[in-house]
Amino acid sequence: MEIRDARPEDWPAVWAFAAPIVASGEHFLWEADTPEARLRAFWIEKEAPASALVAVVEDGSVDGRVVGIAEIHPNQPGRGSHIANAGFMVDPAVRGKGVGRALGAAALARAKADGFTAMQFNAVVATNTRAVDLWHALGFRTLAVLPETFRHPTQGLVGMHLMFREL
Amino acid sequence: MEIRDARPEDWPAVWAFAAPIVASGEHFLWEADTPEARLRAFWIEKEAPASALVAVVEDGSVDGRVVGIAEIHPNQPGRGSHIANAGFMVDPAVRGKGVGRALGAAALARAKADGFTAMQFNAVVATNTRAVDLWHALGFRTLAVLPETFRHPTQGLVGMHLMFREL
Repeated sequence: MEIRDARPEDWPAVWAFAAPIVASGEHFLWEADTPEARLRAFWIEKEAPASALVAVVEDGSVDGRVVGIAEIHPNQPGRGSHIANAGFMVDPAVRGKGVGRALGAAALARAKADGFTAMQFNAVVATNTRAVDLWHALGFRTLAVLPETFRHPTQGLVGMHLMFREL
Repeated sequence: MEIRDARPEDWPAVWAFAAPIVASGEHFLWEADTPEARLRAFWIEKEAPASALVAVVEDGSVDGRVVGIAEIHPNQPGRGSHIANAGFMVDPAVRGKGVGRALGAAALARAKADGFTAMQFNAVVATNTRAVDLWHALGFRTLAVLPETFRHPTQGLVGMHLMFREL
């Protein structure tokens, strides 16, 4: 697996696995009808100090297959811009193979290299235990669970983890 | 004191006390050089479900004098949009006279009336003890202090309170 900077032409491969994830409504705040252009802008059209990375595996083609994406951006503007925030998506077809962990580690390294001093997540859905466990394993701590802040499509109101890790 | 919906023509009176508050860099994330138009848009150009309120005191004029403002907006989009966030500024010339408390109570009532189920603050600067104490008095609890997330102009890196109150 290779982790490299995302390029605009990666989007179709990302959208192929991202569209069903967003449509499920289980992991992200976006409504199912969120325009693809808005998601493309969020995930891949980044300008410094924001950035995006993709995980690529060999599949016999010249460029390989994109199986995951990470995006990094300042968590707040101005006087809070030294703290990074990040988002992650992994193709469910490759779950359990360490793609999320590799992207997480790469995003932490990139954020540190870009001068951020910590990474904060504001909205890790509590029912997404795979993500919660991964971030804890990568050194994040849950500072708070924000009660009933996420409208889950099947489980009703659930909490979101506020996670934090120094860099 | 009267609390009423903010109107676009209130902005000059708000800006008269807001400009020095923003320029101090002590209470908000905005840098000192943030354009006035951006701040006006944030504070007063609101569309439902966002709203803005002003506190007005009698000063002998027909319209009275605007001495404080509150703005209310969804804390997150989509599946998190049932939680409100809010911002407040009070003219330092009337500190200690209950303007902040009245605006806080009115903002909580407005947010509840507009269907929000809780109010969350993400960035209450820990050194702003006046604000921290007021929100605690109005029923907010600090769920976490986000460490060293605010670059204070004179005190270096300080924490920000993540505060939460059900409606």
